Amino acid sequence: MSASGDKKYVYLFNELDAAREAAGADWDAVRTLLGGKGANLFDATELGIPVPPGFTVTTEACNDYLAEGGFPGSLWEQVQQAVIALQGQTGKQFADPENPLLISCRSGAKFSMPGMMDTILNIGLNDQIVESLSEQTGSARFAYDLYRRLLQMFGAVVMGVPDEPFEHAISAQRRQAGVKLDTELTADDWKALCGRFKDIIQQQTAEDFPQDPTEQLKLATEAVFKSWNGKRAIDYRNADRIPHDLGTAVNIQTMVFGNTGEDSATGVFMSRNATTGEPELEGDYLINAQGEDVVAGIRATLPIKQLGEDMPTQFQELEAVAHKLEQHHRNMQDMEFTIERGKLWMLQTRDGKRTAQAEVRIAADMVEEGLISREEAVRRVKPDQVDFFLHPQLDQSAMEGAELVATGLNVSPGAAVGAVAFDPETAEKWANDEGRKVILARPETRPDDVHGMLAAQGIITSKGGRTSHAALVARQFGKPAVVGIAELDIDLEARRMQIGEDRVINEGDFLSIDGNTGKVFAGELPTVVPDINDPHLLQILSWADEIRQIDVRANADYPHDAQRAREYGAQGIGLCRTEHMFFEEDRLPIMQRMITADTPAERASAITDLMPMQRSDFEGLFRAMDGLPVIIRLLDPPLHEFLPSAHELIDRLTELKLRAKDLKSGRRLDQVLREIEDKSSLLERVEALEESNPMLGTRGVRLGLQIPGLYQMQVHAIFEAACRCAKDGVDVHPEVMIPLISHEREFRALIDPLQTEARMVMKEHGVEFPYLFGTMIEIPRAALTADDIAGVAQFFSFGTNDLTQTTYGISRDDAETGFLVHYLQTGLLKDNPFDTIDANGVGRLMKFAIEQGRATRPELEIGICGEHGGDPRSIHLCHRIGVDYVSCSPFRVPIARLTAAHAALEAPRG
Amino acid sequence: MSASGDKKYVYLFNELDAAREAAGADWDAVRTLLGGKGANLFDATELGIPVPPGFTVTTEACNDYLAEGGFPGSLWEQVQQAVIALQGQTGKQFADPENPLLISCRSGAKFSMPGMMDTILNIGLNDQIVESLSEQTGSARFAYDLYRRLLQMFGAVVMGVPDEPFEHAISAQRRQAGVKLDTELTADDWKALCGRFKDIIQQQTAEDFPQDPTEQLKLATEAVFKSWNGKRAIDYRNADRIPHDLGTAVNIQTMVFGNTGEDSATGVFMSRNATTGEPELEGDYLINAQGEDVVAGIRATLPIKQLGEDMPTQFQELEAVAHKLEQHHRNMQDMEFTIERGKLWMLQTRDGKRTAQAEVRIAADMVEEGLISREEAVRRVKPDQVDFFLHPQLDQSAMEGAELVATGLNVSPGAAVGAVAFDPETAEKWANDEGRKVILARPETRPDDVHGMLAAQGIITSKGGRTSHAALVARQFGKPAVVGIAELDIDLEARRMQIGEDRVINEGDFLSIDGNTGKVFAGELPTVVPDINDPHLLQILSWADEIRQIDVRANADYPHDAQRAREYGAQGIGLCRTEHMFFEEDRLPIMQRMITADTPAERASAITDLMPMQRSDFEGLFRAMDGLPVIIRLLDPPLHEFLPSAHELIDRLTELKLRAKDLKSGRRLDQVLREIEDKSSLLERVEALEESNPMLGTRGVRLGLQIPGLYQMQVHAIFEAACRCAKDGVDVHPEVMIPLISHEREFRALIDPLQTEARMVMKEHGVEFPYLFGTMIEIPRAALTADDIAGVAQFFSFGTNDLTQTTYGISRDDAETGFLVHYLQTGLLKDNPFDTIDANGVGRLMKFAIEQGRATRPELEIGICGEHGGDPRSIHLCHRIGVDYVSCSPFRVPIARLTAAHAALEAPRG
Repeated sequence: MSASGDKKYVYLFNELDAAREAAGADWDAVRTLLGGKGANLFDATELGIPVPPGFTVTTEACNDYLAEGGFPGSLWEQVQQAVIALQGQTGKQFADPENPLLISCRSGAKFSMPGMMDTILNIGLNDQIVESLSEQTGSARFAYDLYRRLLQMFGAVVMGVPDEPFEHAISAQRRQAGVKLDTELTADDWKALCGRFKDIIQQQTAEDFPQDPTEQLKLATEAVFKSWNGKRAIDYRNADRIPHDLGTAVNIQTMVFGNTGEDSATGVFMSRNATTGEPELEGDYLINAQGEDVVAGIRATLPIKQLGEDMPTQFQELEAVAHKLEQHHRNMQDMEFTIERGKLWMLQTRDGKRTAQAEVRIAADMVEEGLISREEAVRRVKPDQVDFFLHPQLDQSAMEGAELVATGLNVSPGAAVGAVAFDPETAEKWANDEGRKVILARPETRPDDVHGMLAAQGIITSKGGRTSHAALVARQFGKPAVVGIAELDIDLEARRMQIGEDRVINEGDFLSIDGNTGKVFAGELPTVVPDINDPHLLQILSWADEIRQIDVRANADYPHDAQRAREYGAQGIGLCRTEHMFFEEDRLPIMQRMITADTPAERASAITDLMPMQRSDFEGLFRAMDGLPVIIRLLDPPLHEFLPSAHELIDRLTELKLRAKDLKSGRRLDQVLREIEDKSSLLERVEALEESNPMLGTRGVRLGLQIPGLYQMQVHAIFEAACRCAKDGVDVHPEVMIPLISHEREFRALIDPLQTEARMVMKEHGVEFPYLFGTMIEIPRAALTADDIAGVAQFFSFGTNDLTQTTYGISRDDAETGFLVHYLQTGLLKDNPFDTIDANGVGRLMKFAIEQGRATRPELEIGICGEHGGDPRSIHLCHRIGVDYVSCSPFRVPIARLTAAHAALEAPRG
Repeated sequence: MSASGDKKYVYLFNELDAAREAAGADWDAVRTLLGGKGANLFDATELGIPVPPGFTVTTEACNDYLAEGGFPGSLWEQVQQAVIALQGQTGKQFADPENPLLISCRSGAKFSMPGMMDTILNIGLNDQIVESLSEQTGSARFAYDLYRRLLQMFGAVVMGVPDEPFEHAISAQRRQAGVKLDTELTADDWKALCGRFKDIIQQQTAEDFPQDPTEQLKLATEAVFKSWNGKRAIDYRNADRIPHDLGTAVNIQTMVFGNTGEDSATGVFMSRNATTGEPELEGDYLINAQGEDVVAGIRATLPIKQLGEDMPTQFQELEAVAHKLEQHHRNMQDMEFTIERGKLWMLQTRDGKRTAQAEVRIAADMVEEGLISREEAVRRVKPDQVDFFLHPQLDQSAMEGAELVATGLNVSPGAAVGAVAFDPETAEKWANDEGRKVILARPETRPDDVHGMLAAQGIITSKGGRTSHAALVARQFGKPAVVGIAELDIDLEARRMQIGEDRVINEGDFLSIDGNTGKVFAGELPTVVPDINDPHLLQILSWADEIRQIDVRANADYPHDAQRAREYGAQGIGLCRTEHMFFEEDRLPIMQRMITADTPAERASAITDLMPMQRSDFEGLFRAMDGLPVIIRLLDPPLHEFLPSAHELIDRLTELKLRAKDLKSGRRLDQVLREIEDKSSLLERVEALEESNPMLGTRGVRLGLQIPGLYQMQVHAIFEAACRCAKDGVDVHPEVMIPLISHEREFRALIDPLQTEARMVMKEHGVEFPYLFGTMIEIPRAALTADDIAGVAQFFSFGTNDLTQTTYGISRDDAETGFLVHYLQTGLLKDNPFDTIDANGVGRLMKFAIEQGRATRPELEIGICGEHGGDPRSIHLCHRIGVDYVSCSPFRVPIARLTAAHAALEAPRG
């Protein structure tokens, strides 16, 4: 006798204690032994929920069966014993025509796994028993319908007969009977089909359908075991990294029927409203019907509340069951039930799927109800679910019928609907002058497109990736955007765009874009607007605030952004990019004057002209952030970004030269020649500023050190703005940030004059307030020498975009059209390092910098202000390595608050 | 009485033991107390060298004087006692007209310091004593010349009279006497001048020159003390970081005179030949003359050997002194002597300056003589001195008279002379077809200029920095080069170049360039060719090889480079850049065919065509490096480098379009239109390959992963070449290097197919040999994840050029025309990180990578192959952090061998 001889392989649903003892105390071990589905049925049975009696053959039995190539030890005897026990529990007899016990057989692995054997219902029927069942129930149609289902399922699953012949036979029967629906088929039809089905099985397998119920059970059980090693199941496990040695359990359960008369019913329902989260049962049922009829929608279902009137006792029982299950699972339940001749049976319960709104409300409510802790409520709400509240959404149902014209990268969430415009001027004109809603479509965007982007509802581009200009600006301003739609071809001349081979969209046509999924639809789809001030969301976020250990600031360049960030809960500004102010229409010419200045005096004059503008910008920020810190970064981008591109100028010059050829003389020729001269001279400047690798070039502090007076002017403007606000009673906390430091000497060279400037302004105004001077850590060398830099800098802010570029050696501007796409597509890289901080490389460097920096200056304030500041996985990393705050776009602030709490719940702060 | 009351402040030259006891045992403490010059005089006196008697007032006396504002304690009494001691030693009396003792007074700090008080000679003379000295010596001219010198020096140094009035007075006296030279002035002239000088002092200071010799001595001593805190001295100490609290000593010494008759003489000489290093006295002397006459060149000096005939006894004594001093200092000595009435006095001895050749020979000889150890000999030879042997040099004397037309960056040493050519075709034609020597002048160079660079003797460019293409290629091939000559304006049309405002040089004119200094001369200057096979140099290098702990390999792309590298002592090839092979004339078109291929088949066909060419290149390398490892890097640069630039193409297109406008129809128009089409299509390709930051773009392994078959082809070629060589009995050690790894998965994705390819080729040929697959570490992320990468890579080679770019965030292509220049000019950065590895940033990262890599794979072979491999300071760093070898251009190999030995002598290997 083998070692398996005396193992207990079979447990009745009411033997949970025995199973627990065999498996080990914890629930996971029970699920390992009994499979997920089985464990749930044991659990419900123990709770006193009316579950149809049954038993489970363990996963261990499966493994031993597969190892030995047959039923191990006393397995088959144990199954037969269990069937006898079922007979005792139900008062029915397996294989007894007089009072037949029908059972189902289902696989049930530890993890839900498509590709495993599915259900076989109605085991226990045969030619003789079906006939007596027909007599006993008085419904031949009922009995033969059950039998043909057994034949079909058994034939397909156990005997390997394809589905098609069965389906063909039913179609033929329908044609013959002259009906359209299966429900219109009569008892005789089903009886005839049962005969046909048996023939099909014989023809296809050269074997007869086994008339012996015990033989049916044995074959069904073996089929479940064998399906564990089916190809699809193995592939699925490989893909999902599920161990191959778990095995599957087999669940054998008594059949119950909701279609045995007007005192029977069947239905599905949730313990709460899955759309809104309201605490009320929600679902549908049918009297005298089978479970699948409810889902199939053939008959009009009734709302679950109606059951309270139809079957008040059973409804109360249902409410009690739902309540009990919620209490037990501490979650909203999705349940199936059948009422067989007045008796309620629960067939399934599981945590219910729900909308973002429902998730938030249920989590909040359950805390109030004492079901779960605040921590648990916070843990349950996912970052994406918060995002949902922040953006209008395309109406789900409308999307289903709409024409999907393109799909791109989903870089900025939310829905936008409007008439498509192909240049920023048109977009602005339509939006501002004509009050139309506009979608701006561009090959890619540049800083001088921003006014059009702001005017538009949403943005689509054909080029660019997740960190392209379009994506960054769109996220910054909460504009839905879909970028990198490669098949999009915009013909600016013809004012139309082509998508793929032949779809043409003219300027002015309506488009609807879904920034959540990257889908672009034709036409004007309806939208729904969730409410960020949803009280349950606010509740969850306030609990998150209690839990999290790191702060959340916002990246904001304008007072209205700062205002919004504050409403969303930002605890300060982590990054104000002063250059964005210089791109504004009235300022760009002054900026260009500064850049193209021929003499120091000209340059100084332009710098002076910029000062009051900067000051007024900063004032707005300080007022909006009264009481909170505001980090202002001094000028960062390379100067060429403020000028037209060389390509543009060269194209224009070629055009002008060709035109000049056509003109003999006269005023127009003079004009053209003058423009040639101007553009040539501008081109010279642009070419002088050209760099082979601008990302590694003259920008940030490298500019600050080379343009005398520029950073001083900015510091002057910052402190003058702060002084003015302070005089009005505003509590100001300016933090001046010097970008692109790679050597502490760069910081040292600037800090004295800048500090002096700051103190001078404060003295002039007779005001004092706290302030800091700090730096970006965005170059590997800065991170590597953080100990030195912390000797002079009072705060660090990781610029993880640039730090990723240099640490990884990937240009952000090129990466998403180049090899990185290839890497991501082939799976060589799992994550785009510009979406989520590369923990092993960039993260290691950050950790090193934090340790080194704090070793020198223990009170060093450390944050991150790259795009990663709003990415959940990056926020987890930041928490673990010990940053003080993350800074992200205002629209990501609520998400960051929640995620920071998740991080705190998951791991200690570094 | 102050604390200084009983300090001993004054030591006689023969009281070294007492000074040692006061200062502490070690020589440095003695120098601190007595100053550098004083300590040397004590040392020589103790050796029994005939040094004129004297004494030293300590630095402590100076410090106490400055602190107390006057002579501290018994200082002045001690000085007077020491003068009495001098009287005893010399038999002369200070301030005694009958037998006057004359003395000199000199400052002498621990470190030699310009800006301190200089010498005052002849202290002890006055109106009366000069008269009696005149009588005693029988030479009024001698006596009054001494006196006027005292008056002039004392007046200037002690009393603050400017030099000009003294010089004017002498000029006036010369005019009056009708002579041209001071030596022609008579005793009366000098006597008159002494009177005039005293008047000048009185007029300028309202005080009389002190006639009391003791007063003279006191004032002179105080003047030395005070000069320690003079502005120039403080500035110098600040600049040189010399502590301000060292103080200066004062050296008081008996005067001796070489101009007291035919039994007197004076001279300077070296203990060995300072040009060749030969072991023979070398120098000059004059009978009856003063020291400065020898240097001034007014009288024709005699070679020192002549003294053997003129004064044989004294010459023998001189030889004995030179020998004794060499034995004592274990170095060649540079000495001054005076013979006063037959008595030899040594006035100074110090280590002598010498040429590179002499340094090498003397170091080698002194080891043979048992004077110094091999380690000491190796330590003495400096890297630059080895460099000297590797390149022809412009003749020093010819340079002095030549016209210097420009100065640029000295990027590749040695001299080159030739006719200037402005394009590589001309350079090649002149050199190869006409056998002319050529200097190639270009605005900057590109890969397709290389054939012209190879044909030229040397290269000059107007743009580019130390790591520009021109500089890299020039160093690689040992071509002297001067780059970045900003004022150079090459007019290709007119075939001439302009330098600065108005110097014009036509193509074909001769230029001579000095790569050591960055100077460019007009005309054809003579050169001298040192010998790399100098036996003494070989001896020193072989000792260096015994001492050093790291290997030296060479960067070589061609067999002849490999051959040369081996002759220079390379222990393998650390970097063969396969792309250089693709730039050759017959291969570039195939490479371009691969890049612009429309189909995978076209691409594969081009790759196949490249294979045999690659294989033959590699064969040559393996044969040249029989028995040594050869690292071959797979294709690295971005593809656009193999195509013309977009700018070039756009310019050409504009030109063609303008031309097309002029042509009405016909064959020429068709031609033009066809070229427009071709160029447009090529431009499209070029633009498709354009990247915003190519340095962070698609190259290295990123290309290898995207172009199927390319790396396989290269590995096939490498192993087939190795197999062929191995069959011929060559001992091959190929090491295949994959560039630009930033993630271990990149390596993992390639290693299997490449290993398979390698094994397949070996199996096919039936040959086995050891080989490695490894990677460049040139991206910070690779260094940060070195533990992971070492899991798959068998060797690391730091690409410090790129690693510096990304770690520092500086683009090498832009840096030397942009902000880095500004940083270096303003002193913000002390060193260019592309010249010398940035130890604190890049070096820290390298150290981390080495530790991590070896933790995973203890036998990991680690080298460096960036340009820094030939830089001495970088070699020291490499030694300290534990690399196994450095690899540099063949011409730097001897330097690296020496420097590696220096590093081993200086610090333990990490």
